[in-house]
Amino acid sequence: MRGNDNTAVILIHCPDRPGILAVVTEFINQHKGNILYLDQYVNREEGVFFMRVKWQLDEFQIPQKKIGEYFNTLIGLRFQMTFRLYFSDTKPRMAIFVSKMPHCLYDLLARYSSGEWYVEIPIIISNHPDMEVVAKRFGIEYYYFPITKENKAEQEAKQLELLKKYKITFCVLARYMQVLSSDFIRHYPDRIINIHHSFLPAFAGAKPYHAAHQRGVKIIGATSHYVTSDLDAGPIIDQDVTRISHKDTVEELIKKGRDLEKIVLSHAVEKHIERKILTYKNRTVVFQ
Amino acid sequence: MRGNDNTAVILIHCPDRPGILAVVTEFINQHKGNILYLDQYVNREEGVFFMRVKWQLDEFQIPQKKIGEYFNTLIGLRFQMTFRLYFSDTKPRMAIFVSKMPHCLYDLLARYSSGEWYVEIPIIISNHPDMEVVAKRFGIEYYYFPITKENKAEQEAKQLELLKKYKITFCVLARYMQVLSSDFIRHYPDRIINIHHSFLPAFAGAKPYHAAHQRGVKIIGATSHYVTSDLDAGPIIDQDVTRISHKDTVEELIKKGRDLEKIVLSHAVEKHIERKILTYKNRTVVFQ
Amino acid sequence: MRGNDNTAVILIHCPDRPGILAVVTEFINQHKGNILYLDQYVNREEGVFFMRVKWQLDEFQIPQKKIGEYFNTLIGLRFQMTFRLYFSDTKPRMAIFVSKMPHCLYDLLARYSSGEWYVEIPIIISNHPDMEVVAKRFGIEYYYFPITKENKAEQEAKQLELLKKYKITFCVLARYMQVLSSDFIRHYPDRIINIHHSFLPAFAGAKPYHAAHQRGVKIIGATSHYVTSDLDAGPIIDQDVTRISHKDTVEELIKKGRDLEKIVLSHAVEKHIERKILTYKNRTVVFQ
Amino acid sequence: MRGNDNTAVILIHCPDRPGILAVVTEFINQHKGNILYLDQYVNREEGVFFMRVKWQLDEFQIPQKKIGEYFNTLIGLRFQMTFRLYFSDTKPRMAIFVSKMPHCLYDLLARYSSGEWYVEIPIIISNHPDMEVVAKRFGIEYYYFPITKENKAEQEAKQLELLKKYKITFCVLARYMQVLSSDFIRHYPDRIINIHHSFLPAFAGAKPYHAAHQRGVKIIGATSHYVTSDLDAGPIIDQDVTRISHKDTVEELIKKGRDLEKIVLSHAVEKHIERKILTYKNRTVVFQ
Repeated sequence: MRGNDNTAVILIHCPDRPGILAVVTEFINQHKGNILYLDQYVNREEGVFFMRVKWQLDEFQIPQKKIGEYFNTLIGLRFQMTFRLYFSDTKPRMAIFVSKMPHCLYDLLARYSSGEWYVEIPIIISNHPDMEVVAKRFGIEYYYFPITKENKAEQEAKQLELLKKYKITFCVLARYMQVLSSDFIRHYPDRIINIHHSFLPAFAGAKPYHAAHQRGVKIIGATSHYVTSDLDAGPIIDQDVTRISHKDTVEELIKKGRDLEKIVLSHAVEKHIERKILTYKNRTVVFQ
Repeated sequence: MRGNDNTAVILIHCPDRPGILAVVTEFINQHKGNILYLDQYVNREEGVFFMRVKWQLDEFQIPQKKIGEYFNTLIGLRFQMTFRLYFSDTKPRMAIFVSKMPHCLYDLLARYSSGEWYVEIPIIISNHPDMEVVAKRFGIEYYYFPITKENKAEQEAKQLELLKKYKITFCVLARYMQVLSSDFIRHYPDRIINIHHSFLPAFAGAKPYHAAHQRGVKIIGATSHYVTSDLDAGPIIDQDVTRISHKDTVEELIKKGRDLEKIVLSHAVEKHIERKILTYKNRTVVFQ
Repeated sequence: MRGNDNTAVILIHCPDRPGILAVVTEFINQHKGNILYLDQYVNREEGVFFMRVKWQLDEFQIPQKKIGEYFNTLIGLRFQMTFRLYFSDTKPRMAIFVSKMPHCLYDLLARYSSGEWYVEIPIIISNHPDMEVVAKRFGIEYYYFPITKENKAEQEAKQLELLKKYKITFCVLARYMQVLSSDFIRHYPDRIINIHHSFLPAFAGAKPYHAAHQRGVKIIGATSHYVTSDLDAGPIIDQDVTRISHKDTVEELIKKGRDLEKIVLSHAVEKHIERKILTYKNRTVVFQ
Repeated sequence: MRGNDNTAVILIHCPDRPGILAVVTEFINQHKGNILYLDQYVNREEGVFFMRVKWQLDEFQIPQKKIGEYFNTLIGLRFQMTFRLYFSDTKPRMAIFVSKMPHCLYDLLARYSSGEWYVEIPIIISNHPDMEVVAKRFGIEYYYFPITKENKAEQEAKQLELLKKYKITFCVLARYMQVLSSDFIRHYPDRIINIHHSFLPAFAGAKPYHAAHQRGVKIIGATSHYVTSDLDAGPIIDQDVTRISHKDTVEELIKKGRDLEKIVLSHAVEKHIERKILTYKNRTVVFQ
């Protein structure tokens, strides 16, 4: 989905039973949709069927506006499906939240400005003024919201207004060192992606590299996840690790960790943009 | 140290100050010891110097029995060193503890019987009779100690007696599913190696693969560590990880984990046999 | 397919066109087969459809002996399919070829004797007598065929006879240091699995660790592949790597490589036993 | 060496013999240099000693200008040492060469402008105009040299002049798709770092991702190395790999490869800036 290639993507989960796959693929084929990708998976223990299908709309006989309705009526209801339908003519709109560290921000903006992703990034929001210089380099609006205990609710309200104004569809916390309120999160369920600088669930919370060094682990990691009201406990999207040794100081862990963080965050953002992630019971299904 | 190659190894730590390295290497060179390996590391934050030196004894002018004394008198006391001295003519003697799972046991015994390690394994101890068949294949004595809450202290006493009888210098818990008492552990400080089937400190305790699956992590791991009286919290020796996906069931995590466990445990055992591990403040320094 | 669980597996490839997936899944569902796993993949560039389906036969209405014929008549011919059908009541029969190194052999036998795999290993064949002691430990027949330039054709003929006698369905070269003749290979197309001790295509041929050391690479690897008449050039099944440094001697590369080799070979054997590998144009499709 | 911290670094190699380590550390200690890092390694097979030492100059009694001379006279000549001496008050000056792909360029510039490295990057040189927009974002001079067979020698002469004018000490080829002439390379021995988009020595030369896809490998890689007159055959500095599957198209390999390339190149640049690399017989010793 690198551009408007006139395609649709549907993400489905429902109770497993025979024939779902056949019925869905027939629905598309029969109406002259050309399936480009199909990935399905059945969770046998819980009896749940998951599927992602992407198909070409060029000759599809059902008008785009009606596809959701038809699908629901003809198939969704019958199989008790939860589904989400996306079209390539709707470009996702992303807001970046950042504090003072530039490495994740640069990685996101480099990919964005190189045209790697089919996404629009109209705004960067920060609780510090430091990263405005980076935003300017890439010509993106920078909004600075200093946050204190006292003004937090008020500032979040303004941020939400801004997101609304810019029609933001999802948020990316690129080492944003402020805990979002449950109220804020509620506006973007499964639509706020955070990078945590540890191999979760190890070292949740503050100063994970210090904690890792203290514990003497031999591998450190980074974790991208959707934000929920439980701190660092939302559905994990991606993780990666790197080997360290007793010789590495906390500063070296922080340095090595930066490379993990930016790659793991960008991978999660990419999967989200490509509509490849489905959440279920606080876990993710990440399609290929 | 693949055999009795007539070498000595010294592991040292002490407060850092200028000249330690020069003094120690001079001590060896001047008395006609030929240094084969030297690895040193300074922890700048805590001001601690760590070193491992291995040298050839063939023409060393100080008699083997006197080396420790001379080193301590001439250097150790002056630099407030804590040191351990090992000689290649003393072969380490290892006991394996196992319960019902054979994968780590086989990996240890395959390396042992292939002559990969300079070690003697005279006994295998178990709380179940199942693995006796494996022990027999490799011609190793198998001692079965069924353990209940009531008889635990008594059985551990018998195990300790056995270890003494066989002059065991260190123990390896190859998926031994019994928590050793603090009393037992006290007899083998930094000399009991355990494999925990998770990426510690994540998922300490029972059923880590179930917990990992439940949490929806994208990477699982295994950790080898020295056993202390804090469960799964001793100094970490080695860790490794492997990537999983939402498609992996708990059974598949267990299967993938087996390969991690056996390799990570065997690596730790190898480092221990080669006298390459030094513990300090519940962390390990693993020399190369 | 850990045992005879009364299932069938079909591996299919054919020119891609709409509806294949639906037709195959319907064929199974409609005749009361319960699909347990389905993995499909379309190679868009070459227009080829690949699929693996595993289903329960308990209530399947077509008799097992007739499934191949019915499937071919009703679906295979129509879609120009190449397919292979396997039933869980036919246990694969594996022969191990080994020379002098025990690490891969032990890893295979440990898994086998622990019941990890649904396979029978009746014989071990070698060009050296050294590994007989290992074969005996596991109670497996060991056949020793010393090979010279002069007797090679003759010895291979005897080996083939032996494989026939024991109804061997596939062979595993566990560091077998003899090149098999094209004639021999022809009897077991895509049924001889080799482990090569390098990250192919780098360092094909003899002494890859020496070559890797000479070249100064920072990562070494191992590769399992099906044997074809082109040396070290057959379809790759699995690869893995490990990091090394300038400090590692050739001996240390060999030691580190052993762990890669045994795991990479065993993974390939497992995928083969589970009927998860399909070869196409000298490449493999490895289903999940 | 994140800034001018008033330190010296010496990189040494020489024939191994007893006492080198002691003599060098004494030389520094005795003249009131405070050793910050020391890493040494002995290649036993070839009998070569390698060392990197970094020390504080604050109270060092030999004037900076004289250190090289004194060291050579007192120690270097005696031990037949080849050594290089660096001081933190000399900031390395780097030129980036780039063609049309921005990912490595962005990664280098992001680290540079975030102050991660103690380096000056005054110029970017390209054979295409495309990346000027990126250079401008970071306020760096961009020089465009279109290159044809006919003008290559002439253009390289101009590039060399430019490097001289800007006092460039090393060059980084950030996916620069032009082979440099042997003549050009001769001006910067062990001072031109290239990123090759394969796991060398596999797939040297053009279109490595296409070749990797064609061969059906299961892992792809990237390699940073010093440029020599043998194409893609210079001393390897760093490598990294990522797992792929049969599902990955060439385009997906290219995408996954980008993340490897930028990280592997930046790691090599960092090691070079920190004076941690020594080359010997077309291999590198990379100190910690």
